[in-house]
Amino acid sequence: MLERIRIVLIGTSHPGNIGATARAMHNMGLADLALVAPRCEVITADSVSRASGADALVHDARVVDSLEQAVTDCTLVVGASARSRTLPWPMITPRELGERLPAELATPEARIALVFGREDSGLSNAELQRCHAHVHIPTNPDFSSLNLAAAVQVLAYECRLAWLAQTQTQTQTQNKPGPAQDDEEEAQPLASHEELEHYFAHLERALITIGFHDPAKPRQLMARLRRVILRSRPERMELNILRGILSATEKAAGGQALGARESEPELQQEHDTHQGQKPAQD
Amino acid sequence: MLERIRIVLIGTSHPGNIGATARAMHNMGLADLALVAPRCEVITADSVSRASGADALVHDARVVDSLEQAVTDCTLVVGASARSRTLPWPMITPRELGERLPAELATPEARIALVFGREDSGLSNAELQRCHAHVHIPTNPDFSSLNLAAAVQVLAYECRLAWLAQTQTQTQTQNKPGPAQDDEEEAQPLASHEELEHYFAHLERALITIGFHDPAKPRQLMARLRRVILRSRPERMELNILRGILSATEKAAGGQALGARESEPELQQEHDTHQGQKPAQD
Repeated sequence: MLERIRIVLIGTSHPGNIGATARAMHNMGLADLALVAPRCEVITADSVSRASGADALVHDARVVDSLEQAVTDCTLVVGASARSRTLPWPMITPRELGERLPAELATPEARIALVFGREDSGLSNAELQRCHAHVHIPTNPDFSSLNLAAAVQVLAYECRLAWLAQTQTQTQTQNKPGPAQDDEEEAQPLASHEELEHYFAHLERALITIGFHDPAKPRQLMARLRRVILRSRPERMELNILRGILSATEKAAGGQALGARESEPELQQEHDTHQGQKPAQD
Repeated sequence: MLERIRIVLIGTSHPGNIGATARAMHNMGLADLALVAPRCEVITADSVSRASGADALVHDARVVDSLEQAVTDCTLVVGASARSRTLPWPMITPRELGERLPAELATPEARIALVFGREDSGLSNAELQRCHAHVHIPTNPDFSSLNLAAAVQVLAYECRLAWLAQTQTQTQTQNKPGPAQDDEEEAQPLASHEELEHYFAHLERALITIGFHDPAKPRQLMARLRRVILRSRPERMELNILRGILSATEKAAGGQALGARESEPELQQEHDTHQGQKPAQD
């Protein structure tokens, strides 16, 4: 279970924090570290010293350019966040995160990413909105900014406790004479982060096509739709249905939208602008 | 409660660890730090920098010569320890420590000390035997030595959780007749059952309009869509957005659908049949 939990650090400034994160991870049995656009050298005397023997994790860390790349295969993406944001998002405690792990990692292809932001400014709203849920470590409201590696330590600790609890339960179950809860609902594979992002990109295009969404006046529309869909944790098959609806919508709107474009050239322009932005958003 | 929990560091070698401990404590609402025979300068650039704003705790730390002096007024002394020692001692987990705190601190004069040893060698047997109990943070057996401040972070986090749980229990007892969880995120009204049913009826009509759904061959489509949407527990406002999308879809599909009806009268018939069913579904 623990080997399928990834720690993702975005825009880290201090090599020491990367080393201390590696140590905290290794202490708790985590091994998968991804660094998104670090703002410092990764392998330095400071990072190796603070890793204190866990520097293999620093050397093996995958360095990527974007959050997308770091979490593309993940079925659950949880962002570490301060409590209040303009748009409330499903918020869990570290303990609840631990409690959810066994179910979230029930299928072999399931992967979880725990995402941590910059030392000075945390995660951006755009980054937070790519997450299925936010986890908030309870802190003193007068002094709430945890050190990065300390935050990783707390969540990694909860992951280890959850793993230990599961291991104990399994041992107990195995020792029971009868067959265990075999009749549980067969777990369907969840949509991956990448599949969800393709869906949201498709959704945005379709909403523009039907004239419901104006990227020039976004008004948090996409953020709100992300929230309601991500909260549902769609299965892959469900997402395929939702994408099928979008394709049918675009097809049905085809003639009408074409007419609209001819009479409203500025709409077409906005549409183009959006398409141009798409690769950057993906 | 938290103000009566003291962190005691014995023989610390690195000023940075003292600063990082102060930060972890202040983050979790602890304030009482005692340093027993530190083997380094206490107030240095490194300790102040790692305290990151919590350096008042470093400045206020009581520096004493012996563990005795640090814990003399404490009613419970718990030593952080690796698991196995020659002489087995009452051993608790960090979680059990948290669970015991309310009872242990029930009287106003009660004080708890959490004692942490040297970076290189931990607590001596003599020191461990001055403790009422030992607390062991679960770790990877292949890499079990936590950073000092990381160990403080984990125990301080459990203290804070215990304090929060107690505070909530007290608040709930006090406020019993009144509205619950007032400090929760401002709850948005969820969509009612009736609103959801109107949405699903509207969804079905729109899917027929865009040619995605054939009520004569339903294939569990509506059931699957119900499941994914209901799982999300939409707020009223979110449901309004989703209904807005349906209206825009129908409008955009208008011309196209009209064309389709003219060329495919049997589709129109199905559409009519569906409309006829609608009141029964509502």
